[in-house]
Amino acid sequence: MAEQTPEEVLARFEELSVLEADFEQVELQLIRQANTLNAPLYKKRTETIATIPHFWALVFEQSPPEVDNFIQPSDSAVFAECLESFEVSRFEIEDPKGSPRSFSITFGFSENRYFEDKVLEKKFWFRTAIEGWQGLVSEPVKINWKKGKDLTNGLTDGAYALHQAQKKLRKSSNGKSAQESSLPEYKSLAQKIETSAEASESFFAWFAFVSSYRWVSAEESEKAAQAETERLAKMKKGEKVEDDEDEDDEEQQDFQEVEVFPQGDELATIIAEDMWPSAIKYYKHAHEAEDDDDDLSELEVEEQSDEDESDDEIDIRALVGKGREKASSGSPPSKKQRQL
Amino acid sequence: MAEQTPEEVLARFEELSVLEADFEQVELQLIRQANTLNAPLYKKRTETIATIPHFWALVFEQSPPEVDNFIQPSDSAVFAECLESFEVSRFEIEDPKGSPRSFSITFGFSENRYFEDKVLEKKFWFRTAIEGWQGLVSEPVKINWKKGKDLTNGLTDGAYALHQAQKKLRKSSNGKSAQESSLPEYKSLAQKIETSAEASESFFAWFAFVSSYRWVSAEESEKAAQAETERLAKMKKGEKVEDDEDEDDEEQQDFQEVEVFPQGDELATIIAEDMWPSAIKYYKHAHEAEDDDDDLSELEVEEQSDEDESDDEIDIRALVGKGREKASSGSPPSKKQRQL
Repeated sequence: MAEQTPEEVLARFEELSVLEADFEQVELQLIRQANTLNAPLYKKRTETIATIPHFWALVFEQSPPEVDNFIQPSDSAVFAECLESFEVSRFEIEDPKGSPRSFSITFGFSENRYFEDKVLEKKFWFRTAIEGWQGLVSEPVKINWKKGKDLTNGLTDGAYALHQAQKKLRKSSNGKSAQESSLPEYKSLAQKIETSAEASESFFAWFAFVSSYRWVSAEESEKAAQAETERLAKMKKGEKVEDDEDEDDEEQQDFQEVEVFPQGDELATIIAEDMWPSAIKYYKHAHEAEDDDDDLSELEVEEQSDEDESDDEIDIRALVGKGREKASSGSPPSKKQRQL
Repeated sequence: MAEQTPEEVLARFEELSVLEADFEQVELQLIRQANTLNAPLYKKRTETIATIPHFWALVFEQSPPEVDNFIQPSDSAVFAECLESFEVSRFEIEDPKGSPRSFSITFGFSENRYFEDKVLEKKFWFRTAIEGWQGLVSEPVKINWKKGKDLTNGLTDGAYALHQAQKKLRKSSNGKSAQESSLPEYKSLAQKIETSAEASESFFAWFAFVSSYRWVSAEESEKAAQAETERLAKMKKGEKVEDDEDEDDEEQQDFQEVEVFPQGDELATIIAEDMWPSAIKYYKHAHEAEDDDDDLSELEVEEQSDEDESDDEIDIRALVGKGREKASSGSPPSKKQRQL
């Protein structure tokens, strides 16, 4: 191939960017279509599941390691005791200003000794920052912990308080975020995070997640999306576009020092895109694991040693084992089985 | 919730199995739809890419770690020197007996000093085994290595020879596979695998992959799929179904001792479902990596130390850097950017 001039290389790059945007449009269309086609099946699944005790506690127990690693024995105990329903919903799918990539995850709980809430809903908005970043942002969810029962040791409270203070500050300072790090709620949360042991962090700390980048508002995202649309239109017409790369890179504050759960978006994505659609598979695994009790798999051995170290461990499988004989006939052998 | 009888639990399981099958039908429909909608975009992308030297070599270089980890410096050298085209195709998408989950990966090479082949095509069939396993199987691809240039030290030749011998044996023994392990080709390949150092294994050994389970023929898969359809139909009507689980589990031979590249299906899936659709993104990363040369990222530092150890390393980025100035205007900042 002949050597290319810088102009030719640039033109190729712009062609590729236009193509990427076209691929993204198809992808969004497919997400919408999947949502429509699966809706009646999810509805039916919810009805069937409602008759199965501890369905979601068992699914969480058998979830892929990317989820399971974040679930402490004390979290499993909460799920086994009082998790009654669980749902993922693409709440902006029909919203022209929103994104089909946005979703909410809703947990329904029965009356319990940990918190007052019967419903905890965590929303994730897919947004674009002015400087080009795209991803999921979320607001901290207030959990009304009962006295002495806060599994996160104040992290959800601290994140919620900071988010409220930030909102107020942004309102009064017209969107400038310069002094956020001097808020008392900021310092307090940063300190709390620094002194908390990450390894033993509760899954419930995930409700405090904001962003793996920084908070991006709906207004900023809309502005950024519009600018990108205009840029692409110019490229399509072959007009010159400005290079707005790395614009704010230097000024970027380190918001991650007040991020309670830095991988919160990745965890949410795996829950929404794998655990939720494949819940039946994981539920069946839980039963097969029980059937195979004589030849313990590696996973189970690991879980058992976890149990040894924990005081308030609850045997979820024991909770569902009552009154069952061999009931796994409906399931194909799981050994080495894979879903692609 | 009231305690359930074993019969009720079994009924729930069957309901869930029927639902799982319905979800799978929707999933297959969506794969077909994605294929149709993306086809014109892939066509356009192929045309644009054809004008960009080393596009695919750069994509492989910036591929996710699940792919990159399998690419040795000597493999990169081959890609940089002679990889001219690359394509993923769902070749059974319109075949009622095939599966939309089957795909082929085709590499096009220019005349080179490593092998005679201009095209290497690796096909993956999505199949169901009689005992319930589902997944991708493949046939070893014959690579006509030039003298002294075999990067796999005979592994692709050995796997190809065994597969031919197995085919012959199965034909003459009517499908029974009992004596396969006494084939001289079997012993020879098992020994070759045992003595070869896995860590330095060439990416080209992946062309020898057969299955992470065992070889499953089209005939077996069709029979298994039909049996499953009949089982589901019975379940839907509420008729009793047989429990055919674990049928052959004990008799299962250990075919993995002649599997050259045990994770070959996982690697193929990441290539087909991530690297191929997101190739533009990875190509842009390659250019951004070049632009950021002053503040080397961890990844690049690692790559550099790899280069130090290797004799015949080729600097792919240097190959494309000629005649370019700053050309990354078409790309948004990649820092922390994520595609969900």
